[in-house]
Amino acid sequence: MELTELRNEIDNIDDEIAALFEKRTRIACDIAEYKRAHGMEIFQGGREDEVLKRAADRVSPENADGAKLLFMTLMDISKCRQQQLLTEIKPFIPECETANPLVGAVTKGSYTADACEKFFGNGCNIRYFRDFESVFKAVEDDAVDYGVIPIENSTAGDVSATYGLMLRHRFYICRSTKIRIDHVLAAKPGVRPEDIKTVMSHEMALKQCSVFLEKSGYSTENASSTAKAAETVAASDDNTIGAICSASCAKLFGLVPIVTDIMDIRDNYTRFITISKDLQIPKNASVVSLCLTVPHTAGSLYRILTRFAYCGLNLCHIESKPLPGALAYLKDDAFEFIFYLDFIGSVKDENVVKLLTGLEKGTKFYRFLGNYEEVD
Amino acid sequence: MELTELRNEIDNIDDEIAALFEKRTRIACDIAEYKRAHGMEIFQGGREDEVLKRAADRVSPENADGAKLLFMTLMDISKCRQQQLLTEIKPFIPECETANPLVGAVTKGSYTADACEKFFGNGCNIRYFRDFESVFKAVEDDAVDYGVIPIENSTAGDVSATYGLMLRHRFYICRSTKIRIDHVLAAKPGVRPEDIKTVMSHEMALKQCSVFLEKSGYSTENASSTAKAAETVAASDDNTIGAICSASCAKLFGLVPIVTDIMDIRDNYTRFITISKDLQIPKNASVVSLCLTVPHTAGSLYRILTRFAYCGLNLCHIESKPLPGALAYLKDDAFEFIFYLDFIGSVKDENVVKLLTGLEKGTKFYRFLGNYEEVD
Repeated sequence: MELTELRNEIDNIDDEIAALFEKRTRIACDIAEYKRAHGMEIFQGGREDEVLKRAADRVSPENADGAKLLFMTLMDISKCRQQQLLTEIKPFIPECETANPLVGAVTKGSYTADACEKFFGNGCNIRYFRDFESVFKAVEDDAVDYGVIPIENSTAGDVSATYGLMLRHRFYICRSTKIRIDHVLAAKPGVRPEDIKTVMSHEMALKQCSVFLEKSGYSTENASSTAKAAETVAASDDNTIGAICSASCAKLFGLVPIVTDIMDIRDNYTRFITISKDLQIPKNASVVSLCLTVPHTAGSLYRILTRFAYCGLNLCHIESKPLPGALAYLKDDAFEFIFYLDFIGSVKDENVVKLLTGLEKGTKFYRFLGNYEEVD
Repeated sequence: MELTELRNEIDNIDDEIAALFEKRTRIACDIAEYKRAHGMEIFQGGREDEVLKRAADRVSPENADGAKLLFMTLMDISKCRQQQLLTEIKPFIPECETANPLVGAVTKGSYTADACEKFFGNGCNIRYFRDFESVFKAVEDDAVDYGVIPIENSTAGDVSATYGLMLRHRFYICRSTKIRIDHVLAAKPGVRPEDIKTVMSHEMALKQCSVFLEKSGYSTENASSTAKAAETVAASDDNTIGAICSASCAKLFGLVPIVTDIMDIRDNYTRFITISKDLQIPKNASVVSLCLTVPHTAGSLYRILTRFAYCGLNLCHIESKPLPGALAYLKDDAFEFIFYLDFIGSVKDENVVKLLTGLEKGTKFYRFLGNYEEVD
């Protein structure tokens, strides 16, 4: 047989499958409607295993795995359709944005300040706290209107601690942005690169400039932040020390950049988010973040993603993390992980709301983290 | 109609679908075989869109999304089957393990040393380096037989920098283990808790004990590592300073634990891996790690996971990361992310090898990171 003939045969089979799929979906929806009318549980576990076993038995052994996967997906698609039909929507009520807000952040002069200005404009009102936990607390206690927190770095770590804090505090994400990390070697006005002997900075910043530092032969000293390093250099009488920090941080402490373009990898940025106590959904909200637990069994994450694929939603971040101590009460053999998911979407889309409602009902732990704007 | 009748009707439909599925899979395999025999490209893009459009057109509008997803999965399952039939396996050749190895690690006395002993026994031969990058380099240059590196922490961050390094260096993972983090307050023999005024430690360790530190009223001082803090306390004549570190680290520097059980969250651990230059697959290897790029379009990750679901493989870790600067050459609108995947499996399983071969061929960037043993 030639290719065209084989393809025509497949087309004919596909037409039959499509018709059967539609018929099956209609009956499944009738069953769900019947169950709802009679106050019965809509999704029952045992029936599903029965369907999978039956399908595997109807095909030859080498196609059994494929048949099971196909019918699992078929049932999941059917459930998505039923959920679309039967889910009653509780509308999300976005709060208004706060005018002239007080913003909580960590470390004066670091890239966090750049992020605050990008979110809230030049000269925005920032209150500084000693650590991220204190920022979360200030947001919860209404001591500030918003908090600004780093959440992801393209090359280095030290911000993933935020994830642990996210589970211990109640908040919503309302904005997100990327800040380009661009360190300079800063010193007091008049100091030349060849005068410098020791360079201070945060451990991570020193690492990010390791090639430059090695080539220059400077010795290094750790500081608790890039801003602290700049402050120390500014306060010292010693003209042989410099600090690695951002250009805006150097300026803040009266230092000047004496060597620029010193990073090993140039394309480096940190993602920051704005958090609020009450749900706020900006007009241009385009990303939804959530976290949930998924049973630790083969295919369980896959089945969650089937629901996103059904709605045509594009995941832009996914991450599994070991269940932190704070959620240890959820821990058993089946629940060891928590998943963070970001996808492109809006809660103004009814199907997104129905998807989220279904996830909330079907998972042991679920948290909606916000529907927010990506600020360019 | 009653429930039983509706279910019988679904069963009959399912039998028809199963039979059609088998017939379709057989024809698709015939086509693939024909194409191979005639030296043609087996998977062609255009045909797929044609099949999806045809399926969507055959059902009513409310079922179009479902039909498309079903046929996408159907074609992916079919491809998995074809790959099983047509992929020729290049066998993995595991190297022997090195006897009495020299192990490279960072920071004497930290939890890394505990991990080395768990991997290689008490008194194993460890050479210390100043940072993780140097450990990777030493493994690449044959300066050590193995490297031991922290890779994941259940509550705090600061180890995810490892991921950036993993892409810049050639290596294989051959072992993995979890080390329980259990800090103590350590001081010189004879010093009592009430004598202490200042506590030194790594920033992260101080954070992990913040409740204890606040209650005690101690002031804190950052050190570059918990071991460095212990060393400083041991070398000082000042009896009002203590260090937060592990009990084994305290012992190493001649300090004693004077307060134990000081962490905010008790259930805290760090995952460590052993890396080697050449591929080594231990007899009890049970986890496979890999990283790959996935097009940034709706459903593309889902379709990769379809292949794992087809093989019944259980993902135990998944993480998307922004593409680091080192891989910037891969960056375009379609490739912004890199995925790290761990799953339970062995390259002794033919279907796993075929899955990996298919992934390697079908993705722009792919790296097999090892098939390794989880050490209890």
